[in-house]
Amino acid sequence: MAGNTSNKQGAAVTAVNVAQIPGLNTMGISLVRIDYAPYGLNPHHTHPRSTEILTVLEGSLYVGFVTSNPDNKMFTKVLHKGDVFVFPKGLIHFQFNYGPTPAVVLAALSSQNPGVITIANSVFGSTPSIPNAILAKAFQVEKETVDMMQAQF
Amino acid sequence: MAGNTSNKQGAAVTAVNVAQIPGLNTMGISLVRIDYAPYGLNPHHTHPRSTEILTVLEGSLYVGFVTSNPDNKMFTKVLHKGDVFVFPKGLIHFQFNYGPTPAVVLAALSSQNPGVITIANSVFGSTPSIPNAILAKAFQVEKETVDMMQAQF
Amino acid sequence: MAGNTSNKQGAAVTAVNVAQIPGLNTMGISLVRIDYAPYGLNPHHTHPRSTEILTVLEGSLYVGFVTSNPDNKMFTKVLHKGDVFVFPKGLIHFQFNYGPTPAVVLAALSSQNPGVITIANSVFGSTPSIPNAILAKAFQVEKETVDMMQAQF
Amino acid sequence: MAGNTSNKQGAAVTAVNVAQIPGLNTMGISLVRIDYAPYGLNPHHTHPRSTEILTVLEGSLYVGFVTSNPDNKMFTKVLHKGDVFVFPKGLIHFQFNYGPTPAVVLAALSSQNPGVITIANSVFGSTPSIPNAILAKAFQVEKETVDMMQAQF
Amino acid sequence: MAGNTSNKQGAAVTAVNVAQIPGLNTMGISLVRIDYAPYGLNPHHTHPRSTEILTVLEGSLYVGFVTSNPDNKMFTKVLHKGDVFVFPKGLIHFQFNYGPTPAVVLAALSSQNPGVITIANSVFGSTPSIPNAILAKAFQVEKETVDMMQAQF
Amino acid sequence: MAGNTSNKQGAAVTAVNVAQIPGLNTMGISLVRIDYAPYGLNPHHTHPRSTEILTVLEGSLYVGFVTSNPDNKMFTKVLHKGDVFVFPKGLIHFQFNYGPTPAVVLAALSSQNPGVITIANSVFGSTPSIPNAILAKAFQVEKETVDMMQAQF
Repeated sequence: MAGNTSNKQGAAVTAVNVAQIPGLNTMGISLVRIDYAPYGLNPHHTHPRSTEILTVLEGSLYVGFVTSNPDNKMFTKVLHKGDVFVFPKGLIHFQFNYGPTPAVVLAALSSQNPGVITIANSVFGSTPSIPNAILAKAFQVEKETVDMMQAQF
Repeated sequence: MAGNTSNKQGAAVTAVNVAQIPGLNTMGISLVRIDYAPYGLNPHHTHPRSTEILTVLEGSLYVGFVTSNPDNKMFTKVLHKGDVFVFPKGLIHFQFNYGPTPAVVLAALSSQNPGVITIANSVFGSTPSIPNAILAKAFQVEKETVDMMQAQF
Repeated sequence: MAGNTSNKQGAAVTAVNVAQIPGLNTMGISLVRIDYAPYGLNPHHTHPRSTEILTVLEGSLYVGFVTSNPDNKMFTKVLHKGDVFVFPKGLIHFQFNYGPTPAVVLAALSSQNPGVITIANSVFGSTPSIPNAILAKAFQVEKETVDMMQAQF
Repeated sequence: MAGNTSNKQGAAVTAVNVAQIPGLNTMGISLVRIDYAPYGLNPHHTHPRSTEILTVLEGSLYVGFVTSNPDNKMFTKVLHKGDVFVFPKGLIHFQFNYGPTPAVVLAALSSQNPGVITIANSVFGSTPSIPNAILAKAFQVEKETVDMMQAQF
Repeated sequence: MAGNTSNKQGAAVTAVNVAQIPGLNTMGISLVRIDYAPYGLNPHHTHPRSTEILTVLEGSLYVGFVTSNPDNKMFTKVLHKGDVFVFPKGLIHFQFNYGPTPAVVLAALSSQNPGVITIANSVFGSTPSIPNAILAKAFQVEKETVDMMQAQF
Repeated sequence: MAGNTSNKQGAAVTAVNVAQIPGLNTMGISLVRIDYAPYGLNPHHTHPRSTEILTVLEGSLYVGFVTSNPDNKMFTKVLHKGDVFVFPKGLIHFQFNYGPTPAVVLAALSSQNPGVITIANSVFGSTPSIPNAILAKAFQVEKETVDMMQAQF
């Protein structure tokens, strides 16, 4: 049941959590399979309610997460088939398929309802939109740049 | 003990948590006072380990938070002196002083060590930097725009 | 929304918790504003489900809490505007406005449903009453004194 | 290992918790045996960190607890040998041996470190003492009565 | 309310938990009384959700529990009237009345719904049965032995 | 890093938990890879501190778990490559490779330190041994059968 990676980011997340399987309620665990097209990206996101432990089933990935204020220190690693990596609860993280072959991972999450906040969608793609003056100040860009970014999400 | 708001964002967060007061350990609560210059912004951030309940002590603010995938629904409100607002745990939120007078809030957090992840700093200001090709894809902008954004944080 | 302090104790507690705002459920935090008339007292009480962190907004207060058996050690402090104090979960505590001007505090509690057990009301003002022979023995006073105390609550 | 009940209250609590047996740490449970002389009282107290479930091994007792504000409703029951009763976490409760024969109970607590706050000792027997003016106002008695009560604990 | 010990194992467990008393819900504690005939056994079992603290009320018992992999270390003790013993959460344990007189214990459990998994019933007495080839391999016995064991439970 | 399945049970568990990787502490999640020889069995066991979610990477398995008293109901399923199954916390479960080809699974556990209690090893292979008279009574077999079983573990 490979996911369809024909999208802007070139990645597809197939989840097995309490929204798909009600019997997982109170179990405290869930899974995702992620498929990556060549150069596909699972873009910056957080899981507000879970740690994630990821195992590479096929291909290679460049993955990373960033610690909280005031350090904002980035930890990254190149992972190959069989490698395992952990993303701590609540931190922003990403996985990038840096090569020309597809990749697949299986990731487990420490909640039956981990939640996903994709940064770009939450910030630039909310409904309704956040006023562009606020985003321009927050990200220190021109309002026109914000408008362009909001048009993408 | 007003914070110094002479900075790019025009806002200053003064925290009272376990990092400042070790005796708060295991207490499950902490405080921040936030000062806002006119048009000051406490930019988009999350607290990975706490809910926040905010009370306006002086001035008025436009505040908001965005829910997680797939909805990314934004909830906003204009708050005046004495108003109270809650930001749920882990969600991205901001406060903006939309007017010409300073504002002050007192906010309580449901952890002695709530953590703060400022989105712009975590994404565009990490050490080391996240490669601009990855950020360009994640936020659907040109690499040059990423370079400019990274130069700000 | 100042509370009405025209009562025996000269203090009024205005709560913002799950009983007033159902949406606070599962949020793990709540607030109270407390107004004190001159010489007003928020008498001895405990919160069975939360720590409390208090900030003085106006006036000055003498506050304290007592540790559990076997020490029963009392910790007290005089607080002025802007001062912060923490009452650990479950311990008996009080705040007293020792001077001739009103005082106001904002206090945050680490539960959406912290509960309040006012000692005098729980012991001397329960419905039905605790037999006066038992209270006389517990507090080592005459039954007549117990009767007088019970008449107050 | 009967406790020595030759004291003002006529009751003796023998505890088996993490203070006596370090190996109970993290176990989440502890015990007390309570011996009551005829007319002995285990006076009003709370356990800030545990529920208590009590079984009468010998004799009969009148027991009770009071709910929190605003109801302050008292629940009581007369217990005989073999009867079981539960005191919910954090609520003020007592046990009174209303008859001329000794009584013994075994009580289990849902924490290895339940804590005990004996109301009279915490309020009238703290070190240092709470000022008598504050206690007089809290309990609505004369300062002289407070002085007498403080002399007992 | 002594239990009826006229059964194969010679032991009877009388429980006081949330299944018998709904009001125990959320209380985090429950009780069992266990009666043992001479040479009676409370056979190997676990409580998936609670620690157990046991007090001997009458008689003497040989009790034990075994730690998890890789050690599988057995801890045992002979208990007499008044002795207390703790069985940590989730570990397999038993109590055996090694002598000719009956025994009685009162045990407290750190959950209102501790659960009981009796090993022999779960493994050899499930409905439907586990295939005997699997059990023969798991316990390294002949299938015929498994068939005999399954016939008992 | 396939495990070596040359053992009596024909299965090998390779764990990635806090014992191997101290950095997993507080993360609340861990992994195991399990290799099964043809007809290999991961025999009856429990994890006292975690739920398990298992994904078949290669081959097919017959898996099951049994509920607690009084039902002891067995739930089983045949799983093929890509299938997912959940074993609830604390329940006895097993996986059996019923066919002539090897199988591999990846299983995630909702604790960094889930613990494993293999029933046969805990009951028949403890150090020191549980007296054979007690085991004979618990499992309703002859002492000689117990002796034989104890010799295997």
